[in-house]
Amino acid sequence: MLPALSSLPFSAIAQTQTTQDGSLGSWKEGPAKQAILDFVRATTDQASSKFVPPEQRIATFDQDGTLWVEHPIYSQVVYCLDRVPAVVEKDPKLKNVEPFKTVLSGNREAIAKLSLHDLEKILFATLTGMSVDDFEAEVKKWLTIAKDGRWRRPYTDLIYQPMLEVMGYLRSNGFRTYIVTGGGQDFVRVYSERVYGIPPEQVVGTAGGTKFGYGKDGTPFLTKEPKLLLNDDKAGKPEGIHLMIGRRPRASFGNSDGDREMLEYTGAGDGARLMMLVLHDVAQREYAYGPAQGLPETKVGAFSQALYDEAKKKNWAVISMKNDWKRVFAFDEKG
Amino acid sequence: MLPALSSLPFSAIAQTQTTQDGSLGSWKEGPAKQAILDFVRATTDQASSKFVPPEQRIATFDQDGTLWVEHPIYSQVVYCLDRVPAVVEKDPKLKNVEPFKTVLSGNREAIAKLSLHDLEKILFATLTGMSVDDFEAEVKKWLTIAKDGRWRRPYTDLIYQPMLEVMGYLRSNGFRTYIVTGGGQDFVRVYSERVYGIPPEQVVGTAGGTKFGYGKDGTPFLTKEPKLLLNDDKAGKPEGIHLMIGRRPRASFGNSDGDREMLEYTGAGDGARLMMLVLHDVAQREYAYGPAQGLPETKVGAFSQALYDEAKKKNWAVISMKNDWKRVFAFDEKG
Repeated sequence: MLPALSSLPFSAIAQTQTTQDGSLGSWKEGPAKQAILDFVRATTDQASSKFVPPEQRIATFDQDGTLWVEHPIYSQVVYCLDRVPAVVEKDPKLKNVEPFKTVLSGNREAIAKLSLHDLEKILFATLTGMSVDDFEAEVKKWLTIAKDGRWRRPYTDLIYQPMLEVMGYLRSNGFRTYIVTGGGQDFVRVYSERVYGIPPEQVVGTAGGTKFGYGKDGTPFLTKEPKLLLNDDKAGKPEGIHLMIGRRPRASFGNSDGDREMLEYTGAGDGARLMMLVLHDVAQREYAYGPAQGLPETKVGAFSQALYDEAKKKNWAVISMKNDWKRVFAFDEKG
Repeated sequence: MLPALSSLPFSAIAQTQTTQDGSLGSWKEGPAKQAILDFVRATTDQASSKFVPPEQRIATFDQDGTLWVEHPIYSQVVYCLDRVPAVVEKDPKLKNVEPFKTVLSGNREAIAKLSLHDLEKILFATLTGMSVDDFEAEVKKWLTIAKDGRWRRPYTDLIYQPMLEVMGYLRSNGFRTYIVTGGGQDFVRVYSERVYGIPPEQVVGTAGGTKFGYGKDGTPFLTKEPKLLLNDDKAGKPEGIHLMIGRRPRASFGNSDGDREMLEYTGAGDGARLMMLVLHDVAQREYAYGPAQGLPETKVGAFSQALYDEAKKKNWAVISMKNDWKRVFAFDEKG
């Protein structure tokens, strides 16, 4: 028997209420969750003076430290280090050349001490010089094998469940979610759709040039070149947003001083805006580092006291992992 | 009274049939229209071996000469020439410096003879050095005033109606339509949504860098810099597609040798692909230039005999304005 059509409006209302609450199930009640709910209500209610037409609903998310674990070392850097033996096999004279020699030694202490300049050499050597299709296949393969040292799980398991929920909640309210990362654009695009539900064309990241050419059989292909087009960090984030999206975001999420300019740029537009910063303050369940509020300084993901003060002054919401999240990962029990 | 629900499937079928024919109303029956219909049918029918999942349905369109008139001179170049007096007013010493002096003279013959290098100087001087917001406002204003010399209409009236119909038809079948133009990305983004229904984030074009900074009151803004990031022409088109979209298109439309690499790249993927080239062969209703099939050679939009031969060999469809279109512009009577 067909259901009475008159029952439909009630179902629709129930559905909406579920979305508004249930989809943020890993969030504790508090100012951070409330800021998200208030922003979505204000921008999607046609009766609201802050209503935002759907085409302008753009939300941008930093990745490392905002959507997944960045400690003790960015996953992409692990990928690059893991790729060094294959690069040396193809070009054996690198075996005795620094920094490749140090990486091959497996001496973790020495590797941890490599300079930024050395790391750049490794990034260029391992991320360029192959076709974009070969690169994609390599990263895909690596993601199925590589495991984080602490949790012994694939890196793509180490996604923050509450942030997945925010992205889903925004999308279900007509927002398009973008990743805006200092990480490699091509690297993140390999798994963004599967892991975050974000398609490749909505990933903005540090990007190198490619070169169009033809194979021996005349088939055209693109080769990744060691030429930096966009350094998508700090001021590079709003610059990358303009280049790749061409609209100012309505909402931005970050966790470090590298996200400051993106949040400032987002906040400088008119109407309702949402700027949020994830504070890592759960040493046992994830990590605690800062040095906002006296948390320890580390090599990656600096959230300075100055940024913390700017957030307070400008009314950006600080998300405390400790106070605002019931759990960090999907595999955690709700705390 | 409520309609019987059992009638719904029939309505849905009728709707689909209307879309398949009615939306290409400015196209004559023939191989070009048929190629479009066949491609859409094959890629959207779940029962087809060539079915393409919606997230992979990407179609890219060159702009100048493919979506709107490019003769006798690209509209964006007219914009730049029109902007020269304002640039000189701000920086008076340019008044006696070439090529600005020639542009200010108003001598059309001399302006037409400016070298590519001179044109580049004019482009950099008129397209950079201001905030992205000021640039957008200037272009928007210009578009309401400037008129094409032949039709005495705003440039955005000179859009090819049959191509608007193809874009709409593809979109109604789940494709996302992108512009991939040698023209300026920021320039085209100003009107792409209004004119083509293509949002700014789906415009890939020749792009310069921007620089993030702060105004006197601390408000952050982006300034357009005279630094080329992407020359989105020829090999730059597939390179730009990879940078900005990160997926290989399923369908590509062009009209000149500048689109060759984009069409080759599109065609090199597996499954169903659609590559089409617009041939300008209607001197009276638009323009006739080539030099494919012996049409006259011109400064812009070269469609070489070699490209024509490649199209025939690779089974790309050539759209003859004369034979395949009932009308060129929305304001034409159907011919």
